[in-house]
Amino acid sequence: MAMEALGLAMPTPAGAENFQLPPSSGNGKSVVILGAGISGLIAAYELGRAGYRVTVLEARDRAGGRAWTVRGGDRIVQNGRADQVATFEKGLYFNAGPARIPSTHRVILGYARQFGIALEPFVNVNRSAGWDFGGKVQPERRMVNDIRGHLGELLAKAIDTHALDQQVPKGELELIRQFLGPYAGVGPDGVYVPSGSSGHSVEGGGYTQEPKPLPRLSFKELGPSPAVTLPYLFEHIYDMQSTMLQPVGGMDRIAKAFYERVKPHVRLSSRVTAIRRIGNRVRIEHGPGKQVITADFAIVTLGANLLDRIPNDFSPAKKAAFKGVAYLPSVKVAFEAPRFWERDDFIYGGLAWTDRANENVIYPSDRFGADKGVIVAAYVAGWTNNDNPQKFAAFSDAERLRISRESVEAFHPGRSRLLAKGVAVGWGSIPYSEGVGAIWPGGGARGPHYAELLKPEGPIVFAGEHLSYQGLWQEGAALSAHEAMKIVHAMAKDRATA
Amino acid sequence: MAMEALGLAMPTPAGAENFQLPPSSGNGKSVVILGAGISGLIAAYELGRAGYRVTVLEARDRAGGRAWTVRGGDRIVQNGRADQVATFEKGLYFNAGPARIPSTHRVILGYARQFGIALEPFVNVNRSAGWDFGGKVQPERRMVNDIRGHLGELLAKAIDTHALDQQVPKGELELIRQFLGPYAGVGPDGVYVPSGSSGHSVEGGGYTQEPKPLPRLSFKELGPSPAVTLPYLFEHIYDMQSTMLQPVGGMDRIAKAFYERVKPHVRLSSRVTAIRRIGNRVRIEHGPGKQVITADFAIVTLGANLLDRIPNDFSPAKKAAFKGVAYLPSVKVAFEAPRFWERDDFIYGGLAWTDRANENVIYPSDRFGADKGVIVAAYVAGWTNNDNPQKFAAFSDAERLRISRESVEAFHPGRSRLLAKGVAVGWGSIPYSEGVGAIWPGGGARGPHYAELLKPEGPIVFAGEHLSYQGLWQEGAALSAHEAMKIVHAMAKDRATA
Repeated sequence: MAMEALGLAMPTPAGAENFQLPPSSGNGKSVVILGAGISGLIAAYELGRAGYRVTVLEARDRAGGRAWTVRGGDRIVQNGRADQVATFEKGLYFNAGPARIPSTHRVILGYARQFGIALEPFVNVNRSAGWDFGGKVQPERRMVNDIRGHLGELLAKAIDTHALDQQVPKGELELIRQFLGPYAGVGPDGVYVPSGSSGHSVEGGGYTQEPKPLPRLSFKELGPSPAVTLPYLFEHIYDMQSTMLQPVGGMDRIAKAFYERVKPHVRLSSRVTAIRRIGNRVRIEHGPGKQVITADFAIVTLGANLLDRIPNDFSPAKKAAFKGVAYLPSVKVAFEAPRFWERDDFIYGGLAWTDRANENVIYPSDRFGADKGVIVAAYVAGWTNNDNPQKFAAFSDAERLRISRESVEAFHPGRSRLLAKGVAVGWGSIPYSEGVGAIWPGGGARGPHYAELLKPEGPIVFAGEHLSYQGLWQEGAALSAHEAMKIVHAMAKDRATA
Repeated sequence: MAMEALGLAMPTPAGAENFQLPPSSGNGKSVVILGAGISGLIAAYELGRAGYRVTVLEARDRAGGRAWTVRGGDRIVQNGRADQVATFEKGLYFNAGPARIPSTHRVILGYARQFGIALEPFVNVNRSAGWDFGGKVQPERRMVNDIRGHLGELLAKAIDTHALDQQVPKGELELIRQFLGPYAGVGPDGVYVPSGSSGHSVEGGGYTQEPKPLPRLSFKELGPSPAVTLPYLFEHIYDMQSTMLQPVGGMDRIAKAFYERVKPHVRLSSRVTAIRRIGNRVRIEHGPGKQVITADFAIVTLGANLLDRIPNDFSPAKKAAFKGVAYLPSVKVAFEAPRFWERDDFIYGGLAWTDRANENVIYPSDRFGADKGVIVAAYVAGWTNNDNPQKFAAFSDAERLRISRESVEAFHPGRSRLLAKGVAVGWGSIPYSEGVGAIWPGGGARGPHYAELLKPEGPIVFAGEHLSYQGLWQEGAALSAHEAMKIVHAMAKDRATA
């Protein structure tokens, strides 16, 4: 298809925040959308703007899918487990699904702007937060600055012993050697000596109180090990770099803004029970009861893991592809507590890391100084060990909470008793998700399953974060929805002229 | 003095947020405080809580000193220049002095907490912001990630050619070599290839749109030069590390909170004209008119540069020390504008850096998505060149604005025309400051002038950011005030028992 010919020339996401189908181009045509997550909601919104008659079928009793913000009174249902009901006090929330929006995610930010959703910084790096590896807690600032110093010292050693003279121009080596002074704290003698970036045993004070920098950690304490690698790397990952944003009041502000705009067309509590083709149209059976809807086109945003179990008319190739996609059973645990991390430890937002099974602790980035906050005491997604999600998903909720408490206790001795109202959300057992996102290798070469899943089947087109190169992000859901709509638009045009 | 004996055992700032003089310990004693900046206000507040009768003399018609937030209607007076009146619209502000509070500054944050001042993140690092060096603009993410990759590649080269085998244990070298993969993007072949941290020529999109990482910059483009060194280093400086905070609504919220609590004791527009001793008491002459106040003690918070010109009874050593302290004539320039940096470039807060004379551009960290904001288009403090403050201070205000505009134009082509209502604050020529802070070498060994300035002269004690190891920060002003009060407290006790 020549998108340019369709008036949809937006080859890169750089302009994707301006996505719009030609006005009235959908008049007289109908689309049924399976799933009211971000991709389904965006499809409904944009198709509706273009004049299509849309219907969204959503199994849950709420829109938003994994973009789910848990507040007091919300029920957490997990397959095979007792329900939990959150009892957070008014104004507090827990982003059980996505919690961050990188400032490079122009499409989601574009919609947030369009809808007047207030944004605030999400603190994604906090040098005062702790790293708990090998049973020892260090402030992040000590780890990240000492490793840079340590690596800088080795490089200085190589330069000073002329080991690189044959390979690198002399002028370049001289500049780099000088640069290692301020950048890595390596002195003229080739030794890294911390000068404060790593923290102090005594802070600089008034009058005569000179700051005393902490001594450097040994290589063993800095540990470049598989577990601690990601924490060192984390802030450099493109999608994790500053500035990171969040909607004021909870991530679901975005899904809700879409929902408000397409509400009359969304059928909640309407689980899809069969996906059929009738000629060049679609026929979707769904609950509650045995309802049926037909439409010219369908956009299917459900995960491959779910589609695998819904009776359908898809090709054998598609059915085989459904079985080939792995989903991440990540888990988050949240507690309400008085903000001891701010009050006692001057930790304002940011992440703590650990090789314990809970992997990651997230401090709230909003309402600094308020009495209470929601602390995410586990975010288990394979950050420090690939096996953790499966392992943590297998624990009982009580066990998930216990492990998370113990980790908070290690970071904040004596304070874990202040954690209250704990809830666990294990996405692997959340109905209608059964995983937090499809797992593909990064970069290109995603293999035959991915290619197959992109292919429309007659009037049925696919979308969802898994069908994008911004996987597991709302941005990917949005971008894939845009692609799916371009195809629907092209097919509708073809039919009209046929 | 044995502070422990005085009930003031707070040897490190770790507990300094709990500073309090013994209640009623000041009953019947009087202190005159010179200067209603942060140190003077804190002294007035704490001495007042302890029962001292305090009077604060302030030359300006406002409290806060350099902790000054400029809003619409505020007049900017600079010696030898035409006055400027800011015309920013309601709700917008420009922190002409301090703009950041590191989360390690427990004293200032403790007071903010005590007074219920709302805090929010100050975005101090933004990988999407630009670096404009050698006439070429690159996004920060490209510079900081490529330099890490480049240095990592050199280190890998040294390891792979066994240059470090004699100096570093084999196991350690192997671990480091592995670590350079994820941490610095160095592959098994020893070559650094950007994989996205540095940005993309094509962003990852929906369906088949794979991300295309930008190619690596050459060493020359990364240019470890004197000018660009600080920007590379900046985020690692202890005081600049995340989490960085700001009061919601302007930095002067803090000074104003103190002022509200000590207002009846503050005489504004009261310039000190002489500092005299009468026996073991003090006699301060001040305007307007020829007023005189006497007190048991004085805390003098004025800069050494100002004290040098006020008639006084100080020792020859002190007078000599006053002459020996250099002050930084830093300059900030601010404009009001529609938020094109957010709307067009998705830059939310953070800093841009340049080797132009304006050095640093600061995007607002608050009210993301609002129509307008105040952009600090120059913060000249010697970040990229030590000569810049003197140079920029010498420019006319029109020239300061012109240079700042040109820099914004380089970062945001075509948009500098949106900059309006520009104002410049050159601290070197701001009356009653004449510099933004004393310049001392970092760390210890501050030399004889510093030691001399710390010494009380009879009943006269000194305070101010310059008398601390947190120089140029409000924290330093607070900590030095605490030290000065400990001395006053000890002297008062001695006299009572004499």
